[in-house]
Amino acid sequence: MAAENLGYPAPVTSADTADRDRDVFAVHEGGKLTVSSRSPIDSIADLALTYTPGVAKVCLAIAADPGLARRYTWVSRLVAVVSDGTAVLGLGDLGPVASMPVMEGKVCLFTELAGLSAVPIVLDTTDVDEIVETIVRMAPSFGGINLEDISAPRCFEIERRLKDRLSIPVMHDDQHGTAIVVLAALRNAARVTGRELGDLRVAVVGAGAAGIACARIMLGAGIGDVAIADRQGIIHSGRTELNSAKAEIAALTNKAGHTGSFVDAMAGADVLVGLSGGQIPESAIASMAPNSLVFSLANPVPEVDPIMAARYAAVVATGRSDLPNQINNVLAFPGVFKGAFDAHATAITESMKLAAAGALADVVGQDARPDYVIPNPLDPRVVPAVSEAVAAAALAEGVIAE
Amino acid sequence: MAAENLGYPAPVTSADTADRDRDVFAVHEGGKLTVSSRSPIDSIADLALTYTPGVAKVCLAIAADPGLARRYTWVSRLVAVVSDGTAVLGLGDLGPVASMPVMEGKVCLFTELAGLSAVPIVLDTTDVDEIVETIVRMAPSFGGINLEDISAPRCFEIERRLKDRLSIPVMHDDQHGTAIVVLAALRNAARVTGRELGDLRVAVVGAGAAGIACARIMLGAGIGDVAIADRQGIIHSGRTELNSAKAEIAALTNKAGHTGSFVDAMAGADVLVGLSGGQIPESAIASMAPNSLVFSLANPVPEVDPIMAARYAAVVATGRSDLPNQINNVLAFPGVFKGAFDAHATAITESMKLAAAGALADVVGQDARPDYVIPNPLDPRVVPAVSEAVAAAALAEGVIAE
Repeated sequence: MAAENLGYPAPVTSADTADRDRDVFAVHEGGKLTVSSRSPIDSIADLALTYTPGVAKVCLAIAADPGLARRYTWVSRLVAVVSDGTAVLGLGDLGPVASMPVMEGKVCLFTELAGLSAVPIVLDTTDVDEIVETIVRMAPSFGGINLEDISAPRCFEIERRLKDRLSIPVMHDDQHGTAIVVLAALRNAARVTGRELGDLRVAVVGAGAAGIACARIMLGAGIGDVAIADRQGIIHSGRTELNSAKAEIAALTNKAGHTGSFVDAMAGADVLVGLSGGQIPESAIASMAPNSLVFSLANPVPEVDPIMAARYAAVVATGRSDLPNQINNVLAFPGVFKGAFDAHATAITESMKLAAAGALADVVGQDARPDYVIPNPLDPRVVPAVSEAVAAAALAEGVIAE
Repeated sequence: MAAENLGYPAPVTSADTADRDRDVFAVHEGGKLTVSSRSPIDSIADLALTYTPGVAKVCLAIAADPGLARRYTWVSRLVAVVSDGTAVLGLGDLGPVASMPVMEGKVCLFTELAGLSAVPIVLDTTDVDEIVETIVRMAPSFGGINLEDISAPRCFEIERRLKDRLSIPVMHDDQHGTAIVVLAALRNAARVTGRELGDLRVAVVGAGAAGIACARIMLGAGIGDVAIADRQGIIHSGRTELNSAKAEIAALTNKAGHTGSFVDAMAGADVLVGLSGGQIPESAIASMAPNSLVFSLANPVPEVDPIMAARYAAVVATGRSDLPNQINNVLAFPGVFKGAFDAHATAITESMKLAAAGALADVVGQDARPDYVIPNPLDPRVVPAVSEAVAAAALAEGVIAE
């Protein structure tokens, strides 16, 4: 695939940048969200229905039969987008206050794309126990918990403990949203290059939240072998300093027993999934198998120059909206939560995530080309396809409230 | 004042009740709230402004100058309506799930009457320490905390500790909202019966959250003497079994040194404020001073039959929307929080509450009559009047963020 076919935009000038900054801050003026009442309160009669005395009847009905809360409150269609601000985008630990614009943006996507309501909750603690307890205590307010921008390895334990404690959908989107979209793109990229998933050898560079989740979902989808590397090199069971999340993944990955740096993992690999934010040299790209698949997902600066990568790779994907094949979590989380809610699911399981990835790949389906392995983030077919697949998987697995 | 002047509605039939129930549940179907994005997301360009990559600029700007969060997030105009469901309306401890319709209704009033956004948060704990810690940890998500339907005496300590820990407005509405509206009505009731506040003798029956707060605000407003009674009788400093909230109020009230039951407190009193949910006999009403002021606020069944009370009292007020002089918290909390937010207040202080009561009384002003001592709950003059007075008081006191 020639570089000129990638559809790169014209070079950005400083005047463009200034305009764009002005637009960005204008959109954020006063915040991006609003809560409103679904019925007007224009009269004492309205007040008596929406508030006292009428509301007492509804409270008593729910107290007698808690299942009625699903019908008569907003809770069962409401997502909490929860962060401690420790891993905001690729910017690092900005704290809860400065993370709020991302959380508001995430809520906008839930509301505008999936028709759900959502609320951003940013926490003034980074302690795992405190985060878990806080979320458990506020959980009756919400139908699902979307964890966001919480740094690894704490994010793994927080999600695991919340899933154990709560019987509502819980998902750390930086892990599983990314993993679902990567797997969907990989399915189509394999298809357009005539490969089977079972034959693929994948190198994942970056063993944070997204890297580990990508490795896990790929194994769950039957991909042949996955090696994952962190800053210290390829993760293997001989390494003694690994945290528990990395030790677990060491036992599942790297069948070939590679050691060395991420460059060693890439030699001969069919697929690179870059989730490190570092830089990957041209020689490592050149060392991959012919017609390689290069997913370089650091944002806004990919680990690999996409123009360079296209000289070697059959398919190049990035996180950037101005390039083809954008790997964007927005393709997953709205439909995943909508599907979970539609099915009255009590959890988001591996089979539901695999179903989401399959449905997302199938939106592209037979139209797949090297520069179109994943739908446009706002393709209106995406949320219905993902949510239906997720709901069906939940029903098939039986993880639903009675 | 003759009973026929109270404007009582026609007797309610069971067909009316069935219709009303149907309407109540219809209004609650699917919940009463929705969150929406203030700008549409119809294109990749919209996505790039509202979410990534544009949002990163706003996060970095706030990280560098946290004061910008006021301008570029929704937080500073957002109220958390927080409850543990232990004292839901007059219904008691229904738990968090069944309390949600009240909290949603409260949010509707914040949004529809004051143009603020609000979010209901119901907590799966009744432990004071856990409630305080949970709210403190989620506090960066909100501009103010409205505590709601939390039982006494825990509500006093929870509010006190939150006010100590947080530099945003915190108010337990069942205490202070009620107190503000009662004081406003009392100002006008005193005026229409030719009394001065300093000369009034008040009996408060019920020493829960609202009763104690009413006693406190009346003392702050310079009312002559207040005696407050609980189920064990008049609170006085000779009682050894009092909890700390009641012991504090014992030291401030009952100058005359009354002992005995609430009936003894009412003998010769100018004002009854009923906040007990119990029953008060006709003989006690008859024993009050001539032209008494009877505020019987239990809802939906007042402690005193209003028709009977009107045979003795110059002014009768209740919590009911179908009777004149409705004491309804909705007259206070939307304007109090709006005023606090407008002034960038860091707390809600006694002077701000007194200012709210004064402004609320002044909406009625010279139009005050025995059956019109407090505005209609939806009078459009109320929120602007209360919020301006509260903001001015905050500025005068200097409890504002720099």
